[in-house]
Formats: sequence, structure tokens, C-alpha cells
Amino acid sequence: MLSVQILGTGEYVPTRCVYSSTLDERWHKPAGWTSRHAGIERRYYATEDETTSLMAARAAQAALTAASLEAGQLDCIVSACSVMEQAIPCSAALIQRQLGLGESGIPAFDINATCLSFLAALDTMSMAIAAGRYRYVLIVSSEIASAGLREDDAETAMLFGDGAGAVVLGPTTAHSGTGIQGTHFETYAIGAELCQVRSGGTRIRPRKDMQAFLDGACFEMQGRHTYRMAAQRLPAFLERLFTRAGVSLSSIDRIIPHQASAKALAHLENLLKVPAGKLVKVLAERGNQMAASIPVTLHHAVATGKVKRGDAIALIGSGAGLSFGGVILTY
Amino acid sequence: MLSVQILGTGEYVPTRCVYSSTLDERWHKPAGWTSRHAGIERRYYATEDETTSLMAARAAQAALTAASLEAGQLDCIVSACSVMEQAIPCSAALIQRQLGLGESGIPAFDINATCLSFLAALDTMSMAIAAGRYRYVLIVSSEIASAGLREDDAETAMLFGDGAGAVVLGPTTAHSGTGIQGTHFETYAIGAELCQVRSGGTRIRPRKDMQAFLDGACFEMQGRHTYRMAAQRLPAFLERLFTRAGVSLSSIDRIIPHQASAKALAHLENLLKVPAGKLVKVLAERGNQMAASIPVTLHHAVATGKVKRGDAIALIGSGAGLSFGGVILTY
Repeated sequence: MLSVQILGTGEYVPTRCVYSSTLDERWHKPAGWTSRHAGIERRYYATEDETTSLMAARAAQAALTAASLEAGQLDCIVSACSVMEQAIPCSAALIQRQLGLGESGIPAFDINATCLSFLAALDTMSMAIAAGRYRYVLIVSSEIASAGLREDDAETAMLFGDGAGAVVLGPTTAHSGTGIQGTHFETYAIGAELCQVRSGGTRIRPRKDMQAFLDGACFEMQGRHTYRMAAQRLPAFLERLFTRAGVSLSSIDRIIPHQASAKALAHLENLLKVPAGKLVKVLAERGNQMAASIPVTLHHAVATGKVKRGDAIALIGSGAGLSFGGVILTY
Repeated sequence: MLSVQILGTGEYVPTRCVYSSTLDERWHKPAGWTSRHAGIERRYYATEDETTSLMAARAAQAALTAASLEAGQLDCIVSACSVMEQAIPCSAALIQRQLGLGESGIPAFDINATCLSFLAALDTMSMAIAAGRYRYVLIVSSEIASAGLREDDAETAMLFGDGAGAVVLGPTTAHSGTGIQGTHFETYAIGAELCQVRSGGTRIRPRKDMQAFLDGACFEMQGRHTYRMAAQRLPAFLERLFTRAGVSLSSIDRIIPHQASAKALAHLENLLKVPAGKLVKVLAERGNQMAASIPVTLHHAVATGKVKRGDAIALIGSGAGLSFGGVILTY
């Protein structure tokens, strides 16, 4: 077991609340259509002032307060967002500045595994803490999914919301018994085109072909294919995750899943055959917040007492790539 | 000392060679102006077929061959590029697919610290290998700087070139004596605007304000301010790096610096007061390849016998952020 501890969690909820009823009107659907199809009652969209780094800093500040730490005590700042605020520099540097740490020298870099960025960062930085390289590490996922939604693509656009979630990670304190039992990740890039934003990088150049750039600038999801491929591979992935961690599903107190969609959550629940309430869900009030989903759901679980110190929890998700990831820990 | 070893290095050089004399003509400068100002004789630009992931896969394949490993033996694929190929999914997934590993399940994610991405990944993944989490890890930096250069901005454009560099990292083999002595990173985000590409993320939205997007789509560097801030902070950074590693500069056989510019290389050489030849340079034949500079320079040093097994080497760089990073290891 890796001797690390989640010392505090935090969330930032953008100011603009978008009810599914508003989307019904936008898409000329009967009242209740969006809510029924998405399993989402409301989600939040960032306003112009709510940048990726600002939301990240607010969530980080909440997590620091929960951990009874000052920002200046951090030893490393890791941004774990699917999409950057700008191409250069990395988002973690912009978050460092938003936290008032621009003169601090605290190292800052990004870890990106799309919707699994938070889990990849948690896994990776846990080893750095266990190795004694850092003491307090901030991991923050901040997402503005609304920036990449095509407004006429109801099937995809109804699923997503913006927001940020953060944790402060540190070494296990004496006798707390916290730690990471095991982690496991798998990527199957044959599914790379199932969930993609083709623009925003070196391949499609706006100054060369503006139309191609605009065509590729929104999130494209082949929902049915993604669901099918994820469903096919999820059982074996979960088995390998629990085997690696050396724990059985029955010993897990709570599952914190990625809030991909109501269908994905129901599928996971059926697959695991766990009692209602074991999976923590914030989808109905947040939507799919991409990489921020898992830390926001964890924060919700901690804040509402669904996860307490000493509980065994499993953080599980799938995402673009196509990737699967899981971290099993004693909180 | 962390018991890890660089098992193999590799490089990919794009097909299109651009001599400084060609740039003299483009900018209506006298013959020899670009070469003299940049200290760069030639650099390479990727053609349309040479995508970030394709160049990465070619460099990776070379590193795998040098390590006598098959791609399928990798336990983790880490992309360490400044700029992604596309916004979603992460570049490491696209590289996995280019390596013919799309069905493999090998985990894949990105680490981004702009020009220090390779060093941040080397630091981070070394701890994962030392912890027994992975055996063989690919770290690859592939950059298409030319995609973000404003052709009329001679001062900046003359410095950069495209390319990819890769290493395969693994546990130290018995009696090899290899390992990482120490690493150190510092970020000062008060300098975040000194080197930036403002577009390409969530902040500037092409569908809302195309002109703002295009205005921010190229690399902007305040060369003089960057140089001054880097020069001010570099001495103390280097002292902390060597102190942390517990080694003296005189015990280092070779220094593999980021190839930022001729001026930056000369400054580092003067600051360290090291004999000519201790710093390995590929700038004149490659230009500044952003994050790929350090692995390409390392590969060059290994391939030409400048770095041999058992040598003490220091990988050192600065980059957008503004960040400093260093890794000191026995090769």
C-alpha cells in the first residue's frame, strides 16, 4: 500500500446554471425531453470571467482550506484537465499564478489523460509522495466543456457541464491507515476516434484551412460505439483492477465513478451488482464535467458524509483514448 | 539514488530541411544574417504527413530498437510534448496507435511542462519505475514548432525547428550502477506571458471571436525579458539542483542542455565556467525543438559516444512558465 492521503477536497461551481428545461426550448423538444434523455436536471456553464485557471484556483483554495494548509505550503501543482486554457504555457503555471504563487517557484506541470486525467495524476503523484519527492501536492481538474459543444448537437451537448474539482495529497499521517491499495489503467487507441476534438493542436492548422479547423473544433462523440466498446472491455478491466489491488468488490464502501452519462452509470451499477447508493452520483446536478467529474464527485461524497476516514473507496472511469482507469484507496 | 536506467534513445528528423540561407531570402536579409543571429545553420520542418504522433512513433521505434525491446513490451507510454496533436484525446493515445499498439491496452497519458516536458516526465516516471509500478516506460517528445510560427516574426521564427526525441526507461540492471541522483524544478508564473500561445485552449474561442483567436494562435516570445528573467534566476536554481542531487559540477561528465538559443547556451556555459565541449549542442543543425530538444541532444550525445555508460550527466533546461528543470543521473 502506498502511504498517501487525500488531505482535503474542494469544488468550484460556475455561476451560470443551465436547466434542462432551457435546453428543451433551445432544441424545440417537448418539456422534460433533455432531463429524461440525459438523466441531468441542470449543469453549469462558465461565464467569460470564469477561466479554466480561475475555476481551478477556486477549487484548489477550497481543498487547501479543507486540508488546513496554505497555498504556499504546496510542493507541486498538477493540472489534470482534459483541455488546456491556452496552448502555451501549461495550465498548471496559469493556476499557480491564479493562486498568488507566481513568485513561489513551486513546480507546476500538467498530466492529461482526457477524462481520466485526475486518476492518472493521482496514481502518478502518489508514487512521487511515497518516494519522498514531494510532501503536499495539489491535483486539480478544471473543465469548460461548454467551449467545445456544438449547440445543435443535442445528443452530445445535453450531457456536459463545466466545473472544477481539486484534492491536496500528502503523506499518510501516523496511525491514519490511509493509502492507495492499487491502481490500473488501460488504453485502447483503436477507439481514439470515438471521442475526439480534432482541432486545437498541430494537425489541423487554422491559418491554412480555417473551415477544416472550425469543422474539427467541437467535441465529436460516437455515443453508441463508445458505449459498446466501453461495455465490452469494462468487465475484464475491473477484474484486473481489483486483482492488482488485492481487494474484493464487497470490501469497498463507496464507488466514485466518472459521471459520463446516466446510461454509463447504470451499466456500471448493473455490472458490479452493487446495492443502490454504493455508487456516488452527482450527474443530475452537474452533468459530465470531463476530468473534473471524479474529484467533484469525491468532494461531494466527503462533504455529505458518504465517504469517511477509513472507508475503502474505488475511483473508476473511462474516457477518450479509449481509456479505462481505476484507483482503489483507503480514504 | 533512484534505480532507473535509460535503456535506449532515438530521434526522428523531419524530411524538409530549411537552411538559414532560405530564411535570409524570405526576410530580405543579407546572406548569413539568420545563421549569424540564430547560431543555427539549418532546421527541419515537418511536412503535412509528418504528424506529431507519427514523428513520435518513429523516434520511439528507434529508442526501442536501441533498447532491444519490442513496442509491445512497454508498460506505459508517456507523451511529453509542448503542444498536442489535437485537443482530445491525449497525444499518447495517438502515439500508441501509431506504434501499432491500439489493441494492446498499454496505458498512455501526457505530461506537459512546455519545453521541460521531457524532464518532468523523466522525473515523474522514474519514481513510478522505482516504485515497481511499471517496468518499461516510453517517454517521447515530438514537436511541430513550425505550426505556430508567424512567418514575418524573424526574431522568433529563426530559432525553431521540428523533430522528435524518445527514450525507453527501465529499472537498473544488476551492477550497471545507473540511476538518478537528483532532480529539481521551479516555476515562476509571473513570467507566464513571456513565452505563450494564447489560443488553442478554452480561453479564446474561435467560434466567438475569430480574429482574437488568429491573433493568439502563434508563438509569442518577449525574447529579451525572457532571457533576463531566466538569467536572473538560473544561478540559484542550478545551485539548488546540484545541492539536492548531492553532486558537484566538477563530477559531471556532460551537460545536456535545452537548446533554447545560441545566446542561452553561451550564457549557461559562462555561468557554469565549464570547458568547451562539456555542453552538448545540436542547435546549429536542429534549432530549438521545444520539448524534443533535450531527448534529441541526449540521443546525439549517446550516438556519437559523447555520453557513455557510467557517465554522470546533467539534463538542464528552462522553458515557458517560466520554468527551470534539471535531472542529474548516471547514464
